[in-house]
Amino acid sequence: MVINMAKIQWKGGTILSPVPVVLVSCADGEKKNVFTVAWTGIVCSNPPRTYVSVRPERYSHELISKSGEFCINLPTSYMAKLVDFCGVKSGREFDKFGKLNLTAEPSKTVSCPSVAECPITLECKVFEQKELGSHTMFLADITAVTVNEEILDGKGRMSIEKANLMAYGHGTYYTLGKRIGSFGYSVKKKK
Amino acid sequence: MVINMAKIQWKGGTILSPVPVVLVSCADGEKKNVFTVAWTGIVCSNPPRTYVSVRPERYSHELISKSGEFCINLPTSYMAKLVDFCGVKSGREFDKFGKLNLTAEPSKTVSCPSVAECPITLECKVFEQKELGSHTMFLADITAVTVNEEILDGKGRMSIEKANLMAYGHGTYYTLGKRIGSFGYSVKKKK
Repeated sequence: MVINMAKIQWKGGTILSPVPVVLVSCADGEKKNVFTVAWTGIVCSNPPRTYVSVRPERYSHELISKSGEFCINLPTSYMAKLVDFCGVKSGREFDKFGKLNLTAEPSKTVSCPSVAECPITLECKVFEQKELGSHTMFLADITAVTVNEEILDGKGRMSIEKANLMAYGHGTYYTLGKRIGSFGYSVKKKK
Repeated sequence: MVINMAKIQWKGGTILSPVPVVLVSCADGEKKNVFTVAWTGIVCSNPPRTYVSVRPERYSHELISKSGEFCINLPTSYMAKLVDFCGVKSGREFDKFGKLNLTAEPSKTVSCPSVAECPITLECKVFEQKELGSHTMFLADITAVTVNEEILDGKGRMSIEKANLMAYGHGTYYTLGKRIGSFGYSVKKKK
């Protein structure tokens, strides 16, 4: 097969795919909210550090700016419609936890709640806030990870396939597909 | 079904999943390299901005630091073994482009090459370098996007499914699975 590798040039854009799509929970005093973020990633392994980028006009921007804390909750693909809804509707209009029957569970190391229905939560404390244009980047330390028991195997190790996580790319939500291989498999000697 | 939502607490870790897994190409004069990065994401929509986090001991860290440029190339899932290899083996040992039969194609807006075999490339210019611990974060403007013609539809629009992109999570490479819905589908009125 001859592959045509001619490339078309476009202007710069945010086409990186797939990216995570997560429910970010946050609070400031009595106010709490949950909203959807795709602009997130790991920025450092040791210490474990992450970020979320949020538009200043978002309700949660104010909550995270004031409290300096948030949780990244990884939703299952069964929650996709709810995840989409949390990205479209503002927490200024109504309490999304209540409206969507989401459980605001106390977190371990931060004062904002976790989303109990999400199998994995990363608790985060902001160490720097950067204005980058349309978005503010909240850089944060990951101070704890909490994991629902049902995604652990018999030895207490996490089996991430059990979490049925979802991905996002170019405006579309996807399930994760087939397992291709594990890190280092290209150089592993066969027995 | 009663769901057990009891959460186990672990220390902070880089468990965010799935994340992108990309081939980053870079160069400094005659030296060029391609290596694998999962610590990447979009940090701002307008202007379009991204980052890659790289350990200082990596060969490419020196090339990106000196040149201030890199390309993020999105591999297809058929390239998974090669992607894994590029994450395990250092460019100090040999020329990975040559060894892996990858085509170093001239880029449009940066002086480092793109990987022609990847259907989508983001060309990036560093605007800030941050030391975060084990990793240096290179924050960058996305100055151009190039797209292989074979992933465009009849109207010249990108059909990202044709790119067969891959994802990474908890040490494992995955294909993308089923399309669940598009952004906004939870509030779309039925015809």
